[in-house]
Amino acid sequence: MEQTVQNLEETYKSILRTFLNRKSEQGLYEAQQFSKVLLEHQISPEELVSIHRAVIEELYPSVPVEIVDSLDLLLEVMMGYGLAYREHQSLRDRQI
Amino acid sequence: MEQTVQNLEETYKSILRTFLNRKSEQGLYEAQQFSKVLLEHQISPEELVSIHRAVIEELYPSVPVEIVDSLDLLLEVMMGYGLAYREHQSLRDRQI
Repeated sequence: MEQTVQNLEETYKSILRTFLNRKSEQGLYEAQQFSKVLLEHQISPEELVSIHRAVIEELYPSVPVEIVDSLDLLLEVMMGYGLAYREHQSLRDRQI
Repeated sequence: MEQTVQNLEETYKSILRTFLNRKSEQGLYEAQQFSKVLLEHQISPEELVSIHRAVIEELYPSVPVEIVDSLDLLLEVMMGYGLAYREHQSLRDRQI
């Protein structure tokens, strides 16, 4: 299954709608499945924050600018985890 | 340096204020340093999202509920990365 960043945003938007409308088991299940897709496509955690930011801006255009900007800080801090995650992948690849 | 979750929230709140007031190099530098502290303390990426959520709720109590709830979805999806990250740590520990 080929997923572009655009596709991922659309998928995340759809999951977010399900999640917000009825915070059900279904929403959590979809979140877990989406997490697997992201990891399979080696999407970094900071890219996930970037997808989240884009979807929030699209769904809630009137959201205060500080809230959107705060996601940029979350993205920056998450970059450290992205580095650790890529280190994990290269470590794992060397073990195979 | 011992950091409780409460301390981490206070530190993140202070960094967020710096970051939002003047989106300067200083804000980015503090973000990178904070990222290192979190990794040293083995704080998972979903815990970082949880800290972000708590700080946003505290600084912006009038933020729409959907925006706060959307961070719960981000947290759920981020859990997959937390698992991968812990796998990385156990892999690394076995190699030492």
